[in-house]
Amino acid sequence: MTEASKRRLRLGMVGGGEGAFIGEVHRFAARLDDHYELVAGALSSQQEKAERSASALGLARSYVDFDDMARQESEREDGIEVVSIVTPNHLHAAVAMAFLKRGIHVICDKPLTATLEQAKALYQAAEDSQAQFLLTHNYSAYPMVREARAMVKASKLGNIRSIQVEYAQDWLTEPLEQTGNKQAMWRSDPAQSGIAGCMGDIGSHAYQLACFVADTKAETVLADLSRWGEGRQLDDEANILMRFNNGAKGHLWASQVAPGNENALRLRVYGEKAGLEWSQESPNELIFSPIGLPRQSLRRGNSYLSDAAANTSRIPAGHPEGYLEAFANLYREFAQQLIDDTRSDDLPSLSDGLHGMRFITASVHSSQNNGVWTPLTD
Amino acid sequence: MTEASKRRLRLGMVGGGEGAFIGEVHRFAARLDDHYELVAGALSSQQEKAERSASALGLARSYVDFDDMARQESEREDGIEVVSIVTPNHLHAAVAMAFLKRGIHVICDKPLTATLEQAKALYQAAEDSQAQFLLTHNYSAYPMVREARAMVKASKLGNIRSIQVEYAQDWLTEPLEQTGNKQAMWRSDPAQSGIAGCMGDIGSHAYQLACFVADTKAETVLADLSRWGEGRQLDDEANILMRFNNGAKGHLWASQVAPGNENALRLRVYGEKAGLEWSQESPNELIFSPIGLPRQSLRRGNSYLSDAAANTSRIPAGHPEGYLEAFANLYREFAQQLIDDTRSDDLPSLSDGLHGMRFITASVHSSQNNGVWTPLTD
Amino acid sequence: MTEASKRRLRLGMVGGGEGAFIGEVHRFAARLDDHYELVAGALSSQQEKAERSASALGLARSYVDFDDMARQESEREDGIEVVSIVTPNHLHAAVAMAFLKRGIHVICDKPLTATLEQAKALYQAAEDSQAQFLLTHNYSAYPMVREARAMVKASKLGNIRSIQVEYAQDWLTEPLEQTGNKQAMWRSDPAQSGIAGCMGDIGSHAYQLACFVADTKAETVLADLSRWGEGRQLDDEANILMRFNNGAKGHLWASQVAPGNENALRLRVYGEKAGLEWSQESPNELIFSPIGLPRQSLRRGNSYLSDAAANTSRIPAGHPEGYLEAFANLYREFAQQLIDDTRSDDLPSLSDGLHGMRFITASVHSSQNNGVWTPLTD
Amino acid sequence: MTEASKRRLRLGMVGGGEGAFIGEVHRFAARLDDHYELVAGALSSQQEKAERSASALGLARSYVDFDDMARQESEREDGIEVVSIVTPNHLHAAVAMAFLKRGIHVICDKPLTATLEQAKALYQAAEDSQAQFLLTHNYSAYPMVREARAMVKASKLGNIRSIQVEYAQDWLTEPLEQTGNKQAMWRSDPAQSGIAGCMGDIGSHAYQLACFVADTKAETVLADLSRWGEGRQLDDEANILMRFNNGAKGHLWASQVAPGNENALRLRVYGEKAGLEWSQESPNELIFSPIGLPRQSLRRGNSYLSDAAANTSRIPAGHPEGYLEAFANLYREFAQQLIDDTRSDDLPSLSDGLHGMRFITASVHSSQNNGVWTPLTD
Repeated sequence: MTEASKRRLRLGMVGGGEGAFIGEVHRFAARLDDHYELVAGALSSQQEKAERSASALGLARSYVDFDDMARQESEREDGIEVVSIVTPNHLHAAVAMAFLKRGIHVICDKPLTATLEQAKALYQAAEDSQAQFLLTHNYSAYPMVREARAMVKASKLGNIRSIQVEYAQDWLTEPLEQTGNKQAMWRSDPAQSGIAGCMGDIGSHAYQLACFVADTKAETVLADLSRWGEGRQLDDEANILMRFNNGAKGHLWASQVAPGNENALRLRVYGEKAGLEWSQESPNELIFSPIGLPRQSLRRGNSYLSDAAANTSRIPAGHPEGYLEAFANLYREFAQQLIDDTRSDDLPSLSDGLHGMRFITASVHSSQNNGVWTPLTD
Repeated sequence: MTEASKRRLRLGMVGGGEGAFIGEVHRFAARLDDHYELVAGALSSQQEKAERSASALGLARSYVDFDDMARQESEREDGIEVVSIVTPNHLHAAVAMAFLKRGIHVICDKPLTATLEQAKALYQAAEDSQAQFLLTHNYSAYPMVREARAMVKASKLGNIRSIQVEYAQDWLTEPLEQTGNKQAMWRSDPAQSGIAGCMGDIGSHAYQLACFVADTKAETVLADLSRWGEGRQLDDEANILMRFNNGAKGHLWASQVAPGNENALRLRVYGEKAGLEWSQESPNELIFSPIGLPRQSLRRGNSYLSDAAANTSRIPAGHPEGYLEAFANLYREFAQQLIDDTRSDDLPSLSDGLHGMRFITASVHSSQNNGVWTPLTD
Repeated sequence: MTEASKRRLRLGMVGGGEGAFIGEVHRFAARLDDHYELVAGALSSQQEKAERSASALGLARSYVDFDDMARQESEREDGIEVVSIVTPNHLHAAVAMAFLKRGIHVICDKPLTATLEQAKALYQAAEDSQAQFLLTHNYSAYPMVREARAMVKASKLGNIRSIQVEYAQDWLTEPLEQTGNKQAMWRSDPAQSGIAGCMGDIGSHAYQLACFVADTKAETVLADLSRWGEGRQLDDEANILMRFNNGAKGHLWASQVAPGNENALRLRVYGEKAGLEWSQESPNELIFSPIGLPRQSLRRGNSYLSDAAANTSRIPAGHPEGYLEAFANLYREFAQQLIDDTRSDDLPSLSDGLHGMRFITASVHSSQNNGVWTPLTD
Repeated sequence: MTEASKRRLRLGMVGGGEGAFIGEVHRFAARLDDHYELVAGALSSQQEKAERSASALGLARSYVDFDDMARQESEREDGIEVVSIVTPNHLHAAVAMAFLKRGIHVICDKPLTATLEQAKALYQAAEDSQAQFLLTHNYSAYPMVREARAMVKASKLGNIRSIQVEYAQDWLTEPLEQTGNKQAMWRSDPAQSGIAGCMGDIGSHAYQLACFVADTKAETVLADLSRWGEGRQLDDEANILMRFNNGAKGHLWASQVAPGNENALRLRVYGEKAGLEWSQESPNELIFSPIGLPRQSLRRGNSYLSDAAANTSRIPAGHPEGYLEAFANLYREFAQQLIDDTRSDDLPSLSDGLHGMRFITASVHSSQNNGVWTPLTD
């Protein structure tokens, strides 16, 4: 999308008040390419905090209740066209349904919901709506991830045999949730996070990334989840064996208790003809290893890349793009999709979110059964 | 600056019409933190192009002549408060003077001007103005560069002995300016670029970065400039020996003809007690090497860093920030400075720009004299 | 051991004739520190090849039959004191027993044997011998691996929670064993390699390394082995979940079909207080990540390291040591042990080899049962 | 050279007694491939130390005076065929002449001599001898350095334009020579080291490496040498501009006072068509960057490399070779040369050593004259 073709969509936000992390990320992402104007929000369920937050952001309209917001905005001539949902997981389903049923498009943070049941209900509800839905699996919008996916689709790797994906962090090595840290508190609380901790927070990203690049889905998983942090009720680490519908096998490691790892999401895909490696912390590079030839460092911004990378890139090679740019790619592409009323295969959908919840659920169940192969079905 | 304290400044732009690179970068930077609203521009000196560009960006007011713009905007109640100058180098001085004399703050791309004479004239002119001036040496606004500077100032390295700075690219290895490439054409044209090619375009950045971090200035330089590209009138590579006012010595290598280098700006500073290394293409890391101890990888977003890094950072560790975020730091800090009417030692000023022009000029003269030590004076 | 204290041990070799890989490696290792003199060999079971190989190496005595060799050498005044066994796996047990029962020390390549039954028989037989036994798990003799083990033992990591170990290669991506490649042929032949392919060849190294550094053993494993190469009878890839006797959990990935991986053995160990990372292809570095502090790059040859690293290192920091030096460390330490008649906890023993065979066997069985937790017992 | 074709040369050594660093390195190198047998030495000029050192190494014959040794060995039937000279620089010339004039081949550590005068005298003296001479510029014997040279010769880079070479260490950051450190003491003593400190010790390696790979020599240099260590009489850092006989320009940085650098020799060569990068601390990799294509990581041991790399490599890809293996390559190739009475263009000769002394001398003179272009002539 050139700058010339754009128009600004009226955007609302639910969640993301003072002190929130992901809400601010969504706002950066919405702003970067100037396709959205944030005009309304239910930034907090506490009235005072909601108003203070809205005022700080210069929002035209502040709400406390998301349902009020959905109703009132849908009735206004200048009401929001899109809403971003950046609450804890347990609210995603209800909020999304409130807006979808009134024809307002939804951008929703991951995981889709707190439980598979919620996910199914939401999926059902959305079938009746004309509104579109974007799940912000932002890592799949990095240019070199898009290039990787394009290479797999173009058979540069041959049949895929093996997938190694990992997402390691260290911020929960110590029981941070007991020290008043808000980010740690809701993520480790089953009531807000859902049935999974680490698996929902980052394991879901790792799984989506693997499927997105290797153009496949797991059919069955075998999981060993752990709770290392003292008193922790949800998993903070997972080792998961996977078997995919294209015949590939793989392993996913997710951990929030691995000292020295900040946000170490890393994917490796191996086929009959070549291998690919990508690391989120060095996102402008993709390592391509064709059998019998030197490893190549493919780098964002170069003319030897495909459109998949070029279309999601803003500045020349060697000028590093990062997390916010990748996140903004989702917002930019979704804007284009809404304006043109098209659907892109590259944007994570409600259906992907439902599948992600099946993955989380199957992993939890497998682990509860001491590690048995568990299919990704209801 | 928290989101809460901000207000939007009315921004104009001179240059940066269709097809421009740096103009778009300035717009991203202005937008990211929501402290500016771009409302007017003289985006091109060709009327049709100017209007088309302005319309694509949704600007309220479009001009063809920068002087008209300066005059009219200064007369409006809702006129711009700040202007961004993103033209080729030879226009910087005239445009900046037009706005400064009318009290409009200036954000200007580097190098300051095309010649030292223009720089001195601009500096003179600015003395009478209340308006502030920002030179966009964006690399000095990366969080880990700020951390490096803070460490030097806190004597973590002891007395500085040696500085190695380099900025290598490869995009001019072949004579791209003969193929119609606009970016290459103006940069290799003495009439638009000034007395230097590579030295003005990237050598000036490398020099500023070294001085900024090591908290020093060169007193004298000895340069060997080259023109490798066929028919090229300006330097495309430089090797420069430097002696600094703190007793340190150093070397600067700038090249636009070094295959395999995209935007490889790299700084190494060595003192009596420790060394520091930073690479623009991996900007979230700073290598700190105290004598006798293991090398440390300091990484953006961690609690062990100083305020210098924390204040210029938006998202948690491991979520890479890049070029646009660093550029936006300059815009964000300048907005704060304008709102509070303060002056930050960390923001590149008109005086820094004048010094940079002395560096470029001394380097060119030294090389013309086959390499003699040349002081950075008039 | 200083150069001054050494004396040369008389060494023999079984296997390792023309065209062999690991036999030559053992000879380099034996030679580097000058503690051995190779004087006799049964380098091949084909007489002509055995003699040609022995002559090329300048051996004093050449045999065809290892049992003849063991008998005759044990009867000579100047007979060999130590024998290196570098045959395919299925011969290890018989050859080792022949020498051990005659009091000749044994250096044996890994895995210990082709089957667990052979391993148990060998272990039994060795109980009656005074001779010592070294299993060449060479990767555990790299200086920075020794440092890692010392750090774990010194509680620098606190309780170990998670171990990720992987060993990836790509040389069997295509069915090389069908093209006459000797190394590929015997390794993929159950009659020579035993019950496992990749697991015996490299998985056993990865497992030993993990246990060695983390100072633990697995109690139970759950494995998913694969055969990707067309017509391949033994595994060429494995994903294995592990539970250790210190409460840690982990994952092992071994693959010989991962394009872009040459000899990518990599270990990561995470505890309550810190993490460690080591990669065989950059063996002079160990990454240490204490919680809340910058990552440190510990590098071989520096004074901040412990004796564990210093004692296994020959040259100053920054002068890379590699695979042969690590292999030679085993030979050097074993020589010292034989001369002093001591036992080092750092040298892989027959008991370690037996345990390794239990690991391989349990993994194969687990996978045959479609992935069930399988204890490492008989 | 296959193992089959070798025979052992009788080797002597001058210098290298107890506590020496480089003497031990030469012994490792001589031993690794089994082409030499060390039988005689004048390991120290102090009788007791000489004998103790010889005895520890099991030498057949020990001398105190190198001239005695040369005379007596040349008169024996089983006298040494080759001598390794590993004394401080000021003795190289006299020792080498003593052996050369008696027809004994010489392996000599670098730099060739302490002064240019000595170098010229040695060169003159050698003209009358049939004996061969090897200067141990070991870094040029790494397989990937050989590959780089072969690529330049095969025009893979086109005309060379720019060379950046650097060799940084940190061990002399503090005045170690005042603490009794032997390695630091002689290297910083003009009487033993010669006219240069850092330039002779490591600058000479860096220069030789650049010339070797880029297949050129400097015609003129411009140097800025420094003495940072308190009380230091010889340079401990140098920045040198160079102009080469193939039209290329370049810069050399050598420092022994750069904290965080252990033995950081790094070469970058840029031509019209491609660039090359090699780092001694990651010696198994060579980065090749052809214009317009992805960077390639060429790695030792792969079939896509030329004979230049294959012939200097012992073990498969991914099994790191290091400093000792590269050093041993010189010994191995020199043995082959002596046995076959051939001359290899790849082995550093007396003539290269003389040129190296011209480089050091011109650099020192240029710096003494405050930086003027100084030709590499008498």
